[in-house]
Amino acid sequence: MQKKEVWLKELFELLEIPSLSADPAYNDQMDKAAAWLVSKLKGIGFEAKVLPSDRPVVYGERLDAGEDKPTVLIYGHYDVQSPEPLNEWSSDPFKPEIRANNIYGRGTADDKGQLFTWIAAVEALLDQGSLPVNVKFLIEGAEEVGSKGLDEFVADNKTLLKADICLLSDNHSLSETQPVITYGLRGLTYMEVHVKTLSFDVHSGIYGGNVLNAANVLAEMIAKLKDDNGKVLIPGFYDSVRKVDSTESKELEKYPFTEEEVMKETGAKKVFGEKGFSVQMRAGARPTLDVNGLWSGYTGAGPKTAIPAEAHAKISMRLVPGQTSKEIVEKFGDYVKSITPDGVEIDVVELHGAEPLLLDKNSKYFKAAEEAFEKVFGNGPLYELSGGSIGITVDFKNILGIDSVMMGYGLPDDGLHSPNEKMSLSMWEKGIRTNVEFLKLLGK
Amino acid sequence: MQKKEVWLKELFELLEIPSLSADPAYNDQMDKAAAWLVSKLKGIGFEAKVLPSDRPVVYGERLDAGEDKPTVLIYGHYDVQSPEPLNEWSSDPFKPEIRANNIYGRGTADDKGQLFTWIAAVEALLDQGSLPVNVKFLIEGAEEVGSKGLDEFVADNKTLLKADICLLSDNHSLSETQPVITYGLRGLTYMEVHVKTLSFDVHSGIYGGNVLNAANVLAEMIAKLKDDNGKVLIPGFYDSVRKVDSTESKELEKYPFTEEEVMKETGAKKVFGEKGFSVQMRAGARPTLDVNGLWSGYTGAGPKTAIPAEAHAKISMRLVPGQTSKEIVEKFGDYVKSITPDGVEIDVVELHGAEPLLLDKNSKYFKAAEEAFEKVFGNGPLYELSGGSIGITVDFKNILGIDSVMMGYGLPDDGLHSPNEKMSLSMWEKGIRTNVEFLKLLGK
Repeated sequence: MQKKEVWLKELFELLEIPSLSADPAYNDQMDKAAAWLVSKLKGIGFEAKVLPSDRPVVYGERLDAGEDKPTVLIYGHYDVQSPEPLNEWSSDPFKPEIRANNIYGRGTADDKGQLFTWIAAVEALLDQGSLPVNVKFLIEGAEEVGSKGLDEFVADNKTLLKADICLLSDNHSLSETQPVITYGLRGLTYMEVHVKTLSFDVHSGIYGGNVLNAANVLAEMIAKLKDDNGKVLIPGFYDSVRKVDSTESKELEKYPFTEEEVMKETGAKKVFGEKGFSVQMRAGARPTLDVNGLWSGYTGAGPKTAIPAEAHAKISMRLVPGQTSKEIVEKFGDYVKSITPDGVEIDVVELHGAEPLLLDKNSKYFKAAEEAFEKVFGNGPLYELSGGSIGITVDFKNILGIDSVMMGYGLPDDGLHSPNEKMSLSMWEKGIRTNVEFLKLLGK
Repeated sequence: MQKKEVWLKELFELLEIPSLSADPAYNDQMDKAAAWLVSKLKGIGFEAKVLPSDRPVVYGERLDAGEDKPTVLIYGHYDVQSPEPLNEWSSDPFKPEIRANNIYGRGTADDKGQLFTWIAAVEALLDQGSLPVNVKFLIEGAEEVGSKGLDEFVADNKTLLKADICLLSDNHSLSETQPVITYGLRGLTYMEVHVKTLSFDVHSGIYGGNVLNAANVLAEMIAKLKDDNGKVLIPGFYDSVRKVDSTESKELEKYPFTEEEVMKETGAKKVFGEKGFSVQMRAGARPTLDVNGLWSGYTGAGPKTAIPAEAHAKISMRLVPGQTSKEIVEKFGDYVKSITPDGVEIDVVELHGAEPLLLDKNSKYFKAAEEAFEKVFGNGPLYELSGGSIGITVDFKNILGIDSVMMGYGLPDDGLHSPNEKMSLSMWEKGIRTNVEFLKLLGK
């Protein structure tokens, strides 16, 4: 049996374990998946064990490359999303099968299949002789429940996890021939605003015309958060935003995230955003403000003639490097209070905060990744500033002081969290080969 | 036994019947209450019967005053609201009892007790000899479910219900010594606005900054409906509003509905309304616009970072004499469409419409009511433009072509629809005496 066949057989074993982190009924399956990983790592000469956290964490290390060699921390997660709705799957989500160059099954791309490219790469290097770098694995089981407890785990195990760089594959390339490297992430400030104008809802016939309506007031306040050009009106909101020079913006604009793309993917009839910036700049290099939820008064069927006493909104802002969540929470709160009409009670609550992240794309790690990609994919990576937030990379930066190289071997149509999740078999193989080249380059 | 004692005994019989119109389980009690009224009317020489409608209608007539005498149509309703929550009642809602000059029980003020003042007045006049006017009774059983089917019933029975004036007591005086006559009602246009910007909710990390957010868009549109002075910005909204001259506005401003009153009753920290108008004018003589319901996106606990594809609002406008619901539906729809941003799908739906009503307060009927009030209460009535809508009086105007004289014998603290509903015993007696005087004056 060829090595690839062995690895596929092993990956299938891991995929067959329904390690659902959201449902306590699957706790024993979580333990089983963690144990499987420990056993596999031990099988390739790692010291490995399960460590307690909110969900069991698998830790493994093999540090025999020498003290002069860098230490890499390879991150991945073994937990998966629920496979529901089951009837939309063409094959059993936990009986993986290969059809037309794709491995189908829950967790193939997110993240067991991608994680396995690193385990296989390490094994391949050991088969060739020895590891060019010192390797630590940190494989969590809580990613699908917001990496619950992992920040604390990392803080409690700073010495154990000490490394020069974090490597991870939990995202995607653009195509089989176009890899991507993400060098920045947006942060997030998520607020809730509660407006109260009356002690209780009142009859609109009796009081209509004489009292402040909480729903009208909140709508008017929301309208003052952004202008017609999509600019956020909170004073100082853009003050700390990192300037992106034209070289960088031109490079970002190579990333094929276009107006057409946005419209096709969302059904929008029109792209709308901050005037004067490209779609790519708006997606990654500019902060945003969005109402995520809005509720007030009567929302059932038919008419009800009451004036609402209260109105509520969830409002979040995506932050970019330079901004901090603390700063934006304060500026948002101050501004919202300043535009609250007289006679209105207001309560502004922070629900969640995540810091933006900017990685050094000129570091030797990024250069090595670029070279490895070129060698295996025949094509250098496109650089992306991601619009989303991946909390764990921020934790690594803030707690361990290290950057992360995010190398995605998924594809945009993998169907993460959906029925018929898959991973391209050839991307999986390219992933293993790229990781081998990458680790070799790091050890040079 | 004095007549008053007999009438109280009879009223208690009627109050003991739990004639809840909203719950089909009480249908037999509805029939029982209707039968009780037919029997009572027959007992005082009326031809009376139950007629079918959405809920049974009691009709009775005694037309022996002579053709030269006016015919009055006395309206009331025998159905009541549910007595829930039962544990907040000090006595059984359907075992009426008198405590400290009040009759306690469900339906005392709304409307069995007030209705009975008319039956007793008619009986008193008959005891004295004969009726000074021809009398028709129309007593419905669907008032608490929006007078369902009554407009159709009135339209189908125009000849039967033909009269010169409608008389009704289903509202309240200001105090034991200060009666009120309502001479106008506001109408209502109730709309629903649906805004759609995307095919489905999308991830705010990926698309935030590049798409229109339905919640933000709707809030911005709502903010354009009124200006900072409380003026509605819909073009032509005020065009047909009846002008109120200073004599009339001064008379309206005698009505003790003050800023302090509004604040006390609603818990508002501040009164807010259309600039340049008094509280009384805003409550009855000026149209309004209020958001009654608002919903979009995620409204559960905690953060969810999705951009909502859809947002919805219920928006109603109270109309004043001069305006028509049809006109306002059109103007609202046109304006909302005109302020809908490019690329946004909009749906504007009319949920409900009711026309405003203005009665001729210089008519002989109003003058007679005024005189009767003065005689019994020792005080002339205050004239009020009511902010609410009483659909049935609009139907009488539009279908039968007659005005209504609304003479309220309730008091502001009667607790309609609430536990411990009551009616003042002395107000009930004054009601009977006022009605007697009133009918006598009409027959002169």
